[in-house]
Amino acid sequence: MIIAVDGMGGDHSPAEIVKGCIYALEEISGSIFIIGDEKRIQKELSQYQYDNDRITIIHTTEIITNEDQPVKAVRSKKDSSIVVGMKMVKEKKVDIFISAGNTGALMTSALLILGRIPEIDRPAITAVYPNPAIKKACLLVDAGANSECKVNNLVEFGIMGSIYCEKVLNIKNPRVGLVNIGTEPGKGTPIIKGAYKALEKTNLNFIGNVEARDLQNSAADVIVCDGFVGNVVLKLSEGVAFAFIELVKRKLKESILAKLGALLLIGKLKELKKELDYSEYGGAPILGVKGAVIKMHGSSEAKGVKNAIIRAIPYIENNVVDMIHDEVSKLHTASTEEEHNE
Amino acid sequence: MIIAVDGMGGDHSPAEIVKGCIYALEEISGSIFIIGDEKRIQKELSQYQYDNDRITIIHTTEIITNEDQPVKAVRSKKDSSIVVGMKMVKEKKVDIFISAGNTGALMTSALLILGRIPEIDRPAITAVYPNPAIKKACLLVDAGANSECKVNNLVEFGIMGSIYCEKVLNIKNPRVGLVNIGTEPGKGTPIIKGAYKALEKTNLNFIGNVEARDLQNSAADVIVCDGFVGNVVLKLSEGVAFAFIELVKRKLKESILAKLGALLLIGKLKELKKELDYSEYGGAPILGVKGAVIKMHGSSEAKGVKNAIIRAIPYIENNVVDMIHDEVSKLHTASTEEEHNE
Repeated sequence: MIIAVDGMGGDHSPAEIVKGCIYALEEISGSIFIIGDEKRIQKELSQYQYDNDRITIIHTTEIITNEDQPVKAVRSKKDSSIVVGMKMVKEKKVDIFISAGNTGALMTSALLILGRIPEIDRPAITAVYPNPAIKKACLLVDAGANSECKVNNLVEFGIMGSIYCEKVLNIKNPRVGLVNIGTEPGKGTPIIKGAYKALEKTNLNFIGNVEARDLQNSAADVIVCDGFVGNVVLKLSEGVAFAFIELVKRKLKESILAKLGALLLIGKLKELKKELDYSEYGGAPILGVKGAVIKMHGSSEAKGVKNAIIRAIPYIENNVVDMIHDEVSKLHTASTEEEHNE
Repeated sequence: MIIAVDGMGGDHSPAEIVKGCIYALEEISGSIFIIGDEKRIQKELSQYQYDNDRITIIHTTEIITNEDQPVKAVRSKKDSSIVVGMKMVKEKKVDIFISAGNTGALMTSALLILGRIPEIDRPAITAVYPNPAIKKACLLVDAGANSECKVNNLVEFGIMGSIYCEKVLNIKNPRVGLVNIGTEPGKGTPIIKGAYKALEKTNLNFIGNVEARDLQNSAADVIVCDGFVGNVVLKLSEGVAFAFIELVKRKLKESILAKLGALLLIGKLKELKKELDYSEYGGAPILGVKGAVIKMHGSSEAKGVKNAIIRAIPYIENNVVDMIHDEVSKLHTASTEEEHNE
């Protein structure tokens, strides 16, 4: 098994990426290709003792930054770590590509180079949505790739997310929930109402509508929504959590007793910030394309990188990409038969 | 000036509603009609000393609960406090109606009894969105009445919200922002892109797109979005904040030092919860109907009720309903002229 890791993506590359790869070697078998500037990656690697046979540097000369316009960057920067990594997946030289780089460029290159699974109308970017208060997390599909969705897109998000949860996150019979403005079946826009009915007909463990106030409460394992709502959910959660930390800090400075209390608590507050850190969860897949790709949070540090690499193993071993293909084909066959019978 | 208050709506009626009215009397001139069960309201009133001439009970026999289906309830419960209050606004027997009752029933009765301002395609429910970390708040339009919106609806939300902010909340030249998945003008769905262009053409202080992560940061005074997104923003913020409080509590129990720290902090944590309490902000209007209506949070206590009543004064004195009518008429005239000139 060969895992390709983007050495140049994210806020802490290549140092934390390389460190994460070294950590991961101890927990997995198989080998790692680190893609990026050979000199810079070699310099990081030289700090560690490791089995040289298991890490290979694939040298690239270009970098796609977060400021790059995705489509333009993917088309023009052919020797970037993202484009090269995606091509290696396409050519089956590696089993999976993991990157903390420009999300738009990752999605674009996945679509252009790997292509979508034919039965999937719109591939999705997913995100791990942490529920730190109950030490759980759920998978949000779509996290921002498709700001406008049709009914079948939302149903496909549910199927893809469910398979990933079951096979990679090891959650049995994952609960699939639809983000809506109320829990009753008749709520929401016509598309959301349609998605509710269509999801009910699948063999998924569809638990119905989930209100935004329950997302932090592990209301479902797979959270289905369009990419606009998904983006709002992720960014708002981040915003509210950070505002809350500021508010706590301000409160703690307001009296001497509170200041003393804060001193005693400082370690716990640091832990708190860590539990809110999405990168701890080791990335989430781009689903619906013909190849395995995991997107890590841009701020991923070594632990996040290690976790993403560990998660890649069941992703590859269980052939999640093929499973998605099969499941969605079945759904299409079933709905065609239903139409014939009507 | 006569302010009508729903004595039966909300989780703490009539006790906290009546108490709030008594508090408000000291800060406003004019009188208050409390609408609802005379006996129960009189019992509450009898606990206080106040100027009898300034509070009148309007007896009603029916109650619309939060479990009632709005349209059905408004049609069948003719002698409910909501229906009676709304009719008194329509008949100009009172200047404004304030209620903490069933939001759907309030919106429905406002539409059926008052009717919409002719130039407004879709009236909106608004909400005060608190930014406690910076001790500010903004107005969210729409907070859930219209889950699907056209371009002109979003523009009208911006205009109505801006007038309310300026005239009632006393914010000069309020900043109007559009909730979007990125700050760049080309982001979002076709409708959001269209709304961006249309809002730019108005004479509003339109500051462009606002990402969800900046909503807690007072990125704008008026936050424009469709009711689906508005509902997600409000409920998710509540969910994240409560999850965060649970997380803090859990952390505080994890060690003896932290427990001691927590003891010293307990007063501050209580204050924190209060700052997150939406009801502190005294309600928000239903905009776009032919009459003044303020919706309070269902959990409003006396302070929230008092604040809502105080806010009603500039709402009435500045004739906000007529101003909205005038501003939107101007916009329609301008766009008709533009079409002629093209």
